[in-house]
Amino acid sequence: MKTSQLLLATTRETPADAEVISHQLMIRSGMIRRLAGGLYTWLPLGVRVLRNIEQIIREEMNRAGAQEVLMPVVQPAELWEESGRWQQYGPELLRIKDRHQRDFCLGPTHEEVITDMVRKEIRSYKQLPANYYQIQTKFRDEIRPRFGVMRSREFIMKDAYSFHLNRECLEQTYQVMYDTYHRIFERIGLDYRAVQADTGSIGGDGSHEFHVLADSGEDAIAFSTASDFAANIELAEALAPTGPRPLPSQALTEVATPNIHSIEDVCQFLSVQANQTLKTLLVLGANEDNPVIALVLRGDHEVNDIKVEKHPLVASPMTFASAEQIKQVCGCDAGSIGPVGLTIPMLVDRAAAHCADFVCGANKTGFHLTGVNWNRDVQPGLVTDIRNVVEGDPSPDGKGEIQIKRGIEVGHIFQLGDKYSKALNANVLNEHSRAQILEMGCYGIGVTRVIAAAIEQNHDDKGIIWPDAIAPFQVCIVPMQMHKSPRVAKAVEQLYDSLQKQGVSVLLDDRNERPGVMFNDMELIGIPHRIVIGERGLDQQQIEYKHRRDTEPQNIAEAEFMSFLMAQLNK
Amino acid sequence: MKTSQLLLATTRETPADAEVISHQLMIRSGMIRRLAGGLYTWLPLGVRVLRNIEQIIREEMNRAGAQEVLMPVVQPAELWEESGRWQQYGPELLRIKDRHQRDFCLGPTHEEVITDMVRKEIRSYKQLPANYYQIQTKFRDEIRPRFGVMRSREFIMKDAYSFHLNRECLEQTYQVMYDTYHRIFERIGLDYRAVQADTGSIGGDGSHEFHVLADSGEDAIAFSTASDFAANIELAEALAPTGPRPLPSQALTEVATPNIHSIEDVCQFLSVQANQTLKTLLVLGANEDNPVIALVLRGDHEVNDIKVEKHPLVASPMTFASAEQIKQVCGCDAGSIGPVGLTIPMLVDRAAAHCADFVCGANKTGFHLTGVNWNRDVQPGLVTDIRNVVEGDPSPDGKGEIQIKRGIEVGHIFQLGDKYSKALNANVLNEHSRAQILEMGCYGIGVTRVIAAAIEQNHDDKGIIWPDAIAPFQVCIVPMQMHKSPRVAKAVEQLYDSLQKQGVSVLLDDRNERPGVMFNDMELIGIPHRIVIGERGLDQQQIEYKHRRDTEPQNIAEAEFMSFLMAQLNK
Repeated sequence: MKTSQLLLATTRETPADAEVISHQLMIRSGMIRRLAGGLYTWLPLGVRVLRNIEQIIREEMNRAGAQEVLMPVVQPAELWEESGRWQQYGPELLRIKDRHQRDFCLGPTHEEVITDMVRKEIRSYKQLPANYYQIQTKFRDEIRPRFGVMRSREFIMKDAYSFHLNRECLEQTYQVMYDTYHRIFERIGLDYRAVQADTGSIGGDGSHEFHVLADSGEDAIAFSTASDFAANIELAEALAPTGPRPLPSQALTEVATPNIHSIEDVCQFLSVQANQTLKTLLVLGANEDNPVIALVLRGDHEVNDIKVEKHPLVASPMTFASAEQIKQVCGCDAGSIGPVGLTIPMLVDRAAAHCADFVCGANKTGFHLTGVNWNRDVQPGLVTDIRNVVEGDPSPDGKGEIQIKRGIEVGHIFQLGDKYSKALNANVLNEHSRAQILEMGCYGIGVTRVIAAAIEQNHDDKGIIWPDAIAPFQVCIVPMQMHKSPRVAKAVEQLYDSLQKQGVSVLLDDRNERPGVMFNDMELIGIPHRIVIGERGLDQQQIEYKHRRDTEPQNIAEAEFMSFLMAQLNK
Repeated sequence: MKTSQLLLATTRETPADAEVISHQLMIRSGMIRRLAGGLYTWLPLGVRVLRNIEQIIREEMNRAGAQEVLMPVVQPAELWEESGRWQQYGPELLRIKDRHQRDFCLGPTHEEVITDMVRKEIRSYKQLPANYYQIQTKFRDEIRPRFGVMRSREFIMKDAYSFHLNRECLEQTYQVMYDTYHRIFERIGLDYRAVQADTGSIGGDGSHEFHVLADSGEDAIAFSTASDFAANIELAEALAPTGPRPLPSQALTEVATPNIHSIEDVCQFLSVQANQTLKTLLVLGANEDNPVIALVLRGDHEVNDIKVEKHPLVASPMTFASAEQIKQVCGCDAGSIGPVGLTIPMLVDRAAAHCADFVCGANKTGFHLTGVNWNRDVQPGLVTDIRNVVEGDPSPDGKGEIQIKRGIEVGHIFQLGDKYSKALNANVLNEHSRAQILEMGCYGIGVTRVIAAAIEQNHDDKGIIWPDAIAPFQVCIVPMQMHKSPRVAKAVEQLYDSLQKQGVSVLLDDRNERPGVMFNDMELIGIPHRIVIGERGLDQQQIEYKHRRDTEPQNIAEAEFMSFLMAQLNK
C-alpha cells in the first residue's frame, strides 16, 4: 500500500487521558480513536494489526481441532438466570431491554450461550470431546474504563469452550490448549509466560494465565531463578522458612508506644527491622461461631486475600473487622493488636511462626510487646500460608529463589469442571446410556488487549516496534525526493512491485514530505524493516536498510538486496 | 476436515417458525440455531460460509482502494442527536443506558460514527477521496424478526462510506463501488441484478440496489425484455401510452350501483374490463392550502406510494384521507369517489389520462358514471406517473417491454450527498483554503443475508446447492464401508490428504453410518462435488463423482481422477 492511499493519522499530541504508553502510542500512531469512554474506533493501521493477530489465532485454534462458531453479542436474560449470573454479575454486565421490554445483556462472556447450544446439539459421548471457539465483540461496562484498549468497555476476544465426558479428557484438551496458546504467543512474537493462576469467580480447578512481560504490567508474577516455575503472585506458595525456629533470648516486655500505629513507626520508635515485628489483622469469620478471625504476619509481608479467603474459617470476600469490632475483641485500637492473649482463632503465617524475640501489639492502645516468643508467651494457633511471596523467597518447587516481574494478562485458560453444565443441566448419554453431566473447559485471549500489551513490551521513545508477524506492514520504503527524481521514482516503484509480488506486506511512503517527517512517521507506527532509496544510493548501486531496533542503517549492494531483505524477514 | 471432528448438526425437523426455505435449510443443515427472537448462533458449518463471503468482500473492497476500519457496536447518543436521527429513527434503534445512565444505542448503521471520525481526521482535500469499510455486527430491533437471518435483529454487514470534495468525485467512486459490487456477487456465484432504487429515508440522490433473483424475494423488480434496464418496481417509470387518446363515443350516464364498492364489483355489475374503469383515492396534502388531494388511476393499476410522495402537493409518508374527510370533500363513501365535479387538486396517472368512455364513481354514495371522457366531462388536472409498472408496459428506456421478477436485496449503494456531512459539519479545506462540506457515499452488503439469499436461489428438495466459492467445503468424500474395508480406508485417506495438499477444501465423511445417511447429509448441507469410494470402484480402478446438480453419478478412471476433479473445481 502507498501512504497516499492510507489514512495515516499520526499525531504529535498525546491525549490527556492516555496514562500508559501503549494507549499514547496507539493514538499517536493513528491506530485507534476514542468514540466515547471505553469505546474505540479502529483506524486502518490498527485493523491491519488486529487482522494479523486474529489470523494467527484462527490458524492455531483450527490446527488444535477447535471449531469456529459465532454467538450473538446480545444475549437473553433467561440463560443468565439459569446459571445464576443474572443476579451475581455486577454492573459490568450491561443489562438492556428490547422494544418489547424483554431483558437482554451485552455478552461479556459466552459460557451460558455455548452450554445452551451444546446441551441441545450434543447427545452422545461419541460426539465428545468438542471444542468451540469464536472471535467476537464483547462488552463489559467498566466503571472506569482506561488504558485505551487495555481496559475498554467494548473489546474483541477469542473465547473457546470445550466439553468432555470426564475430567481426564478435559485435562487432555486443557493441555492441548496450553500448548496452542504457547504457539500463538510464540508466533505473535511476544516475551510471555504461562503462569499458574487462581480461577477467581468463574470457578473450577486448574487454571493458567498467559502474561506478556512488561514493566507497566498490572499483575505481579513470581518466577523461579532456577526452574520454569511461574505463578501469579496471588497464587505462588510461600514456603515455611527452613531450619528450626531460633530460641528465645529476650524477656517479654511491655513498652509504651504513644501515637505509634504503622509497622514503619514501630520499627523507627523501637529501632528494629520490620522482619522482627509481627502485625495482626482482624477479618470477619465465615460463620457466627467465630465472627472474627486474627491474621498474624511478619511486619514486612503483605497479606494475600486469595489465600486467606480459601481458609474455611474466613468469610469470602475477605473483609476487615470494623474499629468497633476490634475494640470489642482486643480492647484496643487497630494499631495495637497482637497475638498475645487473644481468644479468637488465629491464622499465623509460616514466616511469622518462625520468628523469635519479636515485637507485636499489646492489645492495649499505645502499647507494644517486645521479646515475644511463640509457645513461651503465646500459642501459634493455625500456621499456614497467608502472605504474598517476595523476591528472595525459596521457589515453591524447591528450585532456586523467587523473583518478581510485572505482566499483562492476555490469555487465561480454565478447567471449569461442571459449574455451568450442572447449572444448565448439560448432559449426554455415556457408554452405559446414562445421562452424565459434562465437564467443561474455557480458554480466552483478549485479542485487542494483546495489541496494547505488544506495544507496552515493544517500543522506544520514537514509537512502536512491531514484531514482524503482527506489524501492519513488514517493510516500509522511504524514497528521497521521489517527486523530483524520476530515477528514484522508478527504482522505488520497481522495488515496491517486486516486494508485493513476493507477498511482502509493504508500505511505500509516496508523500511529498521531507525525509525527517517520513522517518518519524515510519518509526512512530513501528514498521520493523525500513528501506531508503535515493539518488546517492543509486549512484553507488546501494540500497539503505535499517531494522527498527538498529541504531544505524546499513548499505546493501543492489544486486544482493532482495536476498538480504528476505533473510531479514525470515529471521 | 472429517465429519467426526465437525459439529454436523443436521436434522430432519423443520422448526415451526421457519417460513422460508432458506431459514428451514439453514436450521436443518446445522448452519445456525436460534438463541432468541432474531438472534442466531452460527454453528461451524455456517461460520465457514460466512468467512468465505467475508473473504471475497474484503479482497474486492481492498482491491477497490477502500480501507478497512472497525467501529464500535455501541454508539453514543450525542452523535445521533447531532444528525437528528436519535429522534427520527423508530424503535428499531435499540436505545440503551450504561451504568452511569448515559444514553447509547446499538448501531444499526454507522454514518454518524464514520462522519465524526472523518471530520476529526481529514483536514485537506489532498486526503480525498477516501473510502472506509468495515465488516461488523449490527443490531436492528425489528418488531417481528423472521425468515431466520434474512430479517434478524443481530446481523453482519459490510458497510462502506466514501468522502469527496465534490459531486463529480463522488460519482466516480460510486461507479467504482458499482463495479466492485458486480465483482463481489459474480465471485460469490449468484444470479443477481443491479437495479435503480429509491434512496428511502437515508436521503440523497443516486442509488442502486443489488438483488439476488429468487421467486421468494420480497421485492419486485422491473426488467426490460430488450435491454439491461432494471429498477425496483417502486422506482420504474410508467410511460404515457403512445398515440392520441381515443375520441369520446358514449354519453355521460349516471347509474345506480347499490352496495358496489370495489373495482371488481363495478366491473362485474357493469360488465366492463378493469382497464375501462378509473379509481379515485384521496390522500392528505402537504400543506393546509390543499389538505386533501385526489389520485386518479386506472382500475387495474396500483398506486405507487413513493412516486406519489415525491409530488410537492402530497404529504409524506402518503396517508389516506379518513372516511369523514372523504364525506366532507366528496359527499359520498370511499367506494363512489370520482373525478367529475371534484374541486380539490387531482393527480391523474398517465394511463388514466389516456382513457376514454370510462367508468368512475359519481361522488354520490351508490352511484357510478359511465361513458365519462376527459375534457368533455372533467378536466384531467395534473397528469403524472403515480402507479407501479406492470408486465407488458413499455420499458422506460424505450427498449422492449417490462417484465417483473422477484428479488432479495443483498446490497445497496447510495450517493448520500451532504446529508450527514452537513449535519455534523464535516468539512475540509479546499484548493483555495476554504472550508467545504464533504460529499458522501455509502455502500452496504448484508453479509449474513447474502447467505440466506444464496440458498433461496440455490436449493432443491434434498437441500442446499452451494456455489463453489462460498461452499463450506468444495468437495466431500463418502466412503463405502470404510470401517470394514482397510483397502477403502487407505484409498480414502490418500485422496483426502492429496486434496488437502492441493488446497481443496474437503470434508471426509468418516462416520460409521449407512451410505444413505451420509448421502442425505452431504446433499442437505449442499457440498457441490461428491466423491464416492468403495470396494467395487477400486476393483475397477474407478472413482465415482457427482456434482450436486447432476442427476446421475459418473465413474472416472482412477488415473485421470485428479485432473478431472480439478477441471470441475475450476469451472
